Amino acid sequence: MAGVEIERLIQLLAKLPGLGPRSARRAALNMLKRRDAVMIPLAEAIEAAAAAIRTCAVCGNLDTQDPCSLCNDARRDPHIICVVEEVADLWALERSGAFHGRYHVLGGVLSPFAGIGPQDLTIDGLAARARDPAVREVILALNATVEGQTTAHFITERLAGTDIAITHLAHGVPMGGELDYLDDGTLTAALRARRSLG
Amino acid sequence: MAGVEIERLIQLLAKLPGLGPRSARRAALNMLKRRDAVMIPLAEAIEAAAAAIRTCAVCGNLDTQDPCSLCNDARRDPHIICVVEEVADLWALERSGAFHGRYHVLGGVLSPFAGIGPQDLTIDGLAARARDPAVREVILALNATVEGQTTAHFITERLAGTDIAITHLAHGVPMGGELDYLDDGTLTAALRARRSLG
Repeated sequence: MAGVEIERLIQLLAKLPGLGPRSARRAALNMLKRRDAVMIPLAEAIEAAAAAIRTCAVCGNLDTQDPCSLCNDARRDPHIICVVEEVADLWALERSGAFHGRYHVLGGVLSPFAGIGPQDLTIDGLAARARDPAVREVILALNATVEGQTTAHFITERLAGTDIAITHLAHGVPMGGELDYLDDGTLTAALRARRSLG
Repeated sequence: MAGVEIERLIQLLAKLPGLGPRSARRAALNMLKRRDAVMIPLAEAIEAAAAAIRTCAVCGNLDTQDPCSLCNDARRDPHIICVVEEVADLWALERSGAFHGRYHVLGGVLSPFAGIGPQDLTIDGLAARARDPAVREVILALNATVEGQTTAHFITERLAGTDIAITHLAHGVPMGGELDYLDDGTLTAALRARRSLG
């Protein structure tokens, strides 16, 4: 319609998660309406981030430095490694402010269906890190999905025979959650893991 | 978390329609995982589109040439102007292949609430084009929203006193639409505009 430039832009925008062909078109047209305020700055921001951000060779986090600022932070507890699927999960945990140990980003989950095996994830790196005698606990903070749990199981087997405590996040009723809207699996898990009051 | 570069990227992505702060974060992380396949090409595509695409001074369409290829196309009927809110609407009509006249992109709709008045739209330009004696019909292909209909009304008043036929798109049941899922307004309009069979 408006030349190859815009077709190519729409095509690439449609590759981002959450944007289909239709919303990519909307996004492209919207940026063209705000060329100086959004479009040019966005191209520059993408280039700047692509140039500056690297993957931490230790934990897989994204940062301007490698090892990343979390791995470099001597105040963080080196005894606990929290294993997450993606950098987004690491960020979510950091936002909670509840964890002060180290992280390990797998870069995904095992998925025979999508052809993702152990060699596609950073499981070897995790096993190597776990051999450090300083490490006492590995928290598997993986998603409560079939793939997440399969991956957790695989890692547990892989780390078997070490003295490391392997833990996972508690399942239960989310804060603010209404029982009536929760799935049966969550309710069952919450009931089984019930705690005594006070 | 990962430096100002990524914060700025997320901030700018969140300004695109359909992307909130959370999906902008996901999009940013996703691109960083596919630096060569998506991220760098996207930055280049945005820059190329920003440089090449201009707004047609005649109709408001986006194209690499000005006047645009539709305005320059001598095979298109100069007697009919189809008025649309946005370039996306023009594209939708072009995809339908049902219209062979000229277009006029308003660049939005009147919206006192959002502070958008006639001077923010290309209504003056439309009025000027309508003075061309070749123009016989103006189709107001605006959205069936309060703002769209208010704008249609305003344009109708503005073009009053000319010989031009002012029309709007028919309302009715969308093709493939199931009556049970349609709103009352559409059903009422479809019933009122019922046509004799055969």
